Amino acid sequence: MSTVTILVSCRDRTGIVAALSDLIYRNSGNILDADQHSEAESGLFLMRMQWSLDTHVLDRDGLRQALHDLGRSFAFTFKLFIHDRPTRIALWCSNTEHCVYDLLLRQRMGELQDGVIACILSNHDRWREVGEHFSLPVYHVPVDPADRQGAEQRQREIMAEEGIDLIVLARYMQILSPELVADWPERIINIHHSFLPAFVGARPYHQAKERGVKVIGATAHYVTQELDQGPIIEQDVTRVSHRDEVIDLVRKGRDLERQVLSRAVALHLQHRVLTVENRTVVFDG
Amino acid sequence: MSTVTILVSCRDRTGIVAALSDLIYRNSGNILDADQHSEAESGLFLMRMQWSLDTHVLDRDGLRQALHDLGRSFAFTFKLFIHDRPTRIALWCSNTEHCVYDLLLRQRMGELQDGVIACILSNHDRWREVGEHFSLPVYHVPVDPADRQGAEQRQREIMAEEGIDLIVLARYMQILSPELVADWPERIINIHHSFLPAFVGARPYHQAKERGVKVIGATAHYVTQELDQGPIIEQDVTRVSHRDEVIDLVRKGRDLERQVLSRAVALHLQHRVLTVENRTVVFDG
Amino acid sequence: MSTVTILVSCRDRTGIVAALSDLIYRNSGNILDADQHSEAESGLFLMRMQWSLDTHVLDRDGLRQALHDLGRSFAFTFKLFIHDRPTRIALWCSNTEHCVYDLLLRQRMGELQDGVIACILSNHDRWREVGEHFSLPVYHVPVDPADRQGAEQRQREIMAEEGIDLIVLARYMQILSPELVADWPERIINIHHSFLPAFVGARPYHQAKERGVKVIGATAHYVTQELDQGPIIEQDVTRVSHRDEVIDLVRKGRDLERQVLSRAVALHLQHRVLTVENRTVVFDG
Amino acid sequence: MSTVTILVSCRDRTGIVAALSDLIYRNSGNILDADQHSEAESGLFLMRMQWSLDTHVLDRDGLRQALHDLGRSFAFTFKLFIHDRPTRIALWCSNTEHCVYDLLLRQRMGELQDGVIACILSNHDRWREVGEHFSLPVYHVPVDPADRQGAEQRQREIMAEEGIDLIVLARYMQILSPELVADWPERIINIHHSFLPAFVGARPYHQAKERGVKVIGATAHYVTQELDQGPIIEQDVTRVSHRDEVIDLVRKGRDLERQVLSRAVALHLQHRVLTVENRTVVFDG
Repeated sequence: MSTVTILVSCRDRTGIVAALSDLIYRNSGNILDADQHSEAESGLFLMRMQWSLDTHVLDRDGLRQALHDLGRSFAFTFKLFIHDRPTRIALWCSNTEHCVYDLLLRQRMGELQDGVIACILSNHDRWREVGEHFSLPVYHVPVDPADRQGAEQRQREIMAEEGIDLIVLARYMQILSPELVADWPERIINIHHSFLPAFVGARPYHQAKERGVKVIGATAHYVTQELDQGPIIEQDVTRVSHRDEVIDLVRKGRDLERQVLSRAVALHLQHRVLTVENRTVVFDG
Repeated sequence: MSTVTILVSCRDRTGIVAALSDLIYRNSGNILDADQHSEAESGLFLMRMQWSLDTHVLDRDGLRQALHDLGRSFAFTFKLFIHDRPTRIALWCSNTEHCVYDLLLRQRMGELQDGVIACILSNHDRWREVGEHFSLPVYHVPVDPADRQGAEQRQREIMAEEGIDLIVLARYMQILSPELVADWPERIINIHHSFLPAFVGARPYHQAKERGVKVIGATAHYVTQELDQGPIIEQDVTRVSHRDEVIDLVRKGRDLERQVLSRAVALHLQHRVLTVENRTVVFDG
Repeated sequence: MSTVTILVSCRDRTGIVAALSDLIYRNSGNILDADQHSEAESGLFLMRMQWSLDTHVLDRDGLRQALHDLGRSFAFTFKLFIHDRPTRIALWCSNTEHCVYDLLLRQRMGELQDGVIACILSNHDRWREVGEHFSLPVYHVPVDPADRQGAEQRQREIMAEEGIDLIVLARYMQILSPELVADWPERIINIHHSFLPAFVGARPYHQAKERGVKVIGATAHYVTQELDQGPIIEQDVTRVSHRDEVIDLVRKGRDLERQVLSRAVALHLQHRVLTVENRTVVFDG
Repeated sequence: MSTVTILVSCRDRTGIVAALSDLIYRNSGNILDADQHSEAESGLFLMRMQWSLDTHVLDRDGLRQALHDLGRSFAFTFKLFIHDRPTRIALWCSNTEHCVYDLLLRQRMGELQDGVIACILSNHDRWREVGEHFSLPVYHVPVDPADRQGAEQRQREIMAEEGIDLIVLARYMQILSPELVADWPERIINIHHSFLPAFVGARPYHQAKERGVKVIGATAHYVTQELDQGPIIEQDVTRVSHRDEVIDLVRKGRDLERQVLSRAVALHLQHRVLTVENRTVVFDG
């Protein structure tokens, strides 16, 4: 069996669900999960549909062409995902371990359906042993402030050689160039250690302590040109008190960060994230 | 514009979404929200679909007949809701006020879409002023342990006179007869002051304190013959510590109870609750 | 029995707990609850202590003097609260009802220990019936943009006549003058409908929808000269999805706002809130 | 500097805080954190106090004797913890990895203050590589149903050789003998994969799915003779929907389990857990 997922957004219009489900039915597909909503306020039609069909029946080009025709007549845009191979992921990291381990362990426990972590890339030379433990290649790409382009060139080569589809910044502490971001739209996920848009920028836990907030958070988002401004995929929070010093906020934050980043990666891998303007629509049931 | 909602459950089978959305499309309907999921483990097909159409186009009998035919050919059972009048609700209560006020205030703020609280019924004579404040009739039906049947007879008459569709037990402390429960299947909602199935029975907050749990809860469920065993519609919890004495648990519990009961009533009014065997499937986006 | 509460903050120094608890013991007090913490990072000593004693034993002036002397020798500042009469509260409101009702109901259910809501003040003439239902005086003080001083003069008179200790802005939509704020330090509580410091300013739910956050919040804080910048007393959050339109965020927000505001008022009434610099320390067990 | 912690419980009585803090002050200690509460309903006095003092000043025997005398005159019982060496922990496990990794990673990140994981013990021969990665000895002790005593004998020897203070059952799937449990009172922590007391016994996630609960939980508790009935140290919950099949509940549950178990272990290591009758009082700020 093969599985196919489509994400659709457009101006609301009558008949799209009927036309799509009819197309799927005529192509011998069985809808596994459908999630559609029309926003009254924005007038947007938003949908995710997932179906299965016999692999030998699947006619990729025919399906794409039929959807293309349908999209033209109903004026919708779509993203189609045919699950014929797992999404290949690169974990980029610096010194911090918790998010990297969390994702590697989920892979080991079989939680990362539809995806495979293919390699680790770091600007620090300290990940070899972790790579060995999880049987993964580790690429050490130091970033010389005087030659950021050289580092980026090497990073791009590695991504190409490894056939990477998704970059996960698991507390990677270097800034990416606008060109790199532009070449990987909605394919770079970052974890920010605050409840965005509160506490943008550096040292958010110090900011949180100083402001005396009662709740801290973490935010996973797609990376865009503007720092900390990309579409938010997932967020979560936890309560804190005055007994939590900054070191405790950092510790509590680590738990949030790994949970939120892992959930965001899972949502992306299951094609549950649709970007509309600068926000996401997450079809998470 | 009229709005129509359908809830469907059956053995999973190819083509149901296509057939249904086609039927809606041919009847000039516009799907507003669709939520379908096939359970791999149970093999169940579960769906809620909601659509709008011009009121003058709506052919009630034709629609029912068409769905009946479709249901027969695909072997599905369905519940159809045509929103031509609000669901009429009776609040049954005893002495406790918080759940009653919560629902009445939501009605006043326009939150109870698709429903209207029509009356208050209590075994205690203390609700007149509340009824006046919210412009609602109040029925005082004392329950004499020696003549429970007489009280029930009166309750049934009031429900009939007021044209009630849904009974909400807002901390009503009398037990209903099996006959009454049988006559109102999935139309009586109760709020239980614990995280069921923990702490069934009386005085759950005392039980919780004694057991030293770190989290307490509340559960809204449809009433069935077995006490505290009906299908769960909604639940929520809150943290507690040893500084919370039983009186504090009761206070914290009140906040939970009114939130959980109000959410359960809203879910019911929006036809988001499908009962399968003795559990509910809640299509809450 | 009388109850006394003290809040202390100072540079950390050995012997304060011993000296204070000895003072209490020698004055025949029984400590009911003590909560002390020394912040390693800031070097601050923070404490709340609550004790009971026979009313006829309580020597107010002597106690104040003894604490004053102790404070001098240990270089600590303190706030002392002798619970001989309930804190008198004025609810200021505009059009929105949910926070007002929530507090009034809690009073009715006996939850507002140590406080009493004494009156309602609004710039809109729509609260008479609510006042009657809860047996409270209602003051209608319209605010003419051309004569804000006149309105403030009237507000000050009412606060004085009613002997008000605490002003609760229960969604009061007028801005207070810097003079009024200065005269009521840490005695005006406001509820802001966002998770501060995210979404300061107007229409936070619209901002939240546009930014696509997955969690919305509410914040109760003391009012200071800077809008939305006062010390935060309490915050809470709830999850949202794309199915929540702005109208749903408003509805979900209402539930948060009343919960958060009521908790903040209760914490204030129980003298659990200590302000240090521009943040609060909340001794909430 | 040395740190000392005391946990006290007794019938409430005037003067205990004064006497204890005076004793600490006279012995040159500086109180870092004090948390005391008298339960009105039960009449219990409950306290945790933590202080620091110059190591060369600390007179262990003198301190114990002084506290013993004080305890006798005030009729209180206490537990004293002098942090002169880390609590030594053994992780017992079977096949499941998530809880084990979680604790090992926290140790690596320096989160396990006051404790050190000394070894891994399992009835399965599959932990060598994990032990090597984290530089820990691994003991494989198979449990032959026909000779449980032999296995227990070996387990006891290892605990003795390793100087273990605390056994953490990180999803260890064998039942302990009553003798072993009796010899390790409040020194064995187990993680149960449900919100106890709901769903005791086997396969709680299947039970949860069948009952249709909207929230699942996990519970860490001290092990006592009665299965799943020991004093609860920590609990937490997460929301689930019909889209979560049992396999998803297991996955969501894993996240809960490791969080809850790790928090429980940290609370124990910081001497924040006092057992009173069959419940715990957790002084967690």
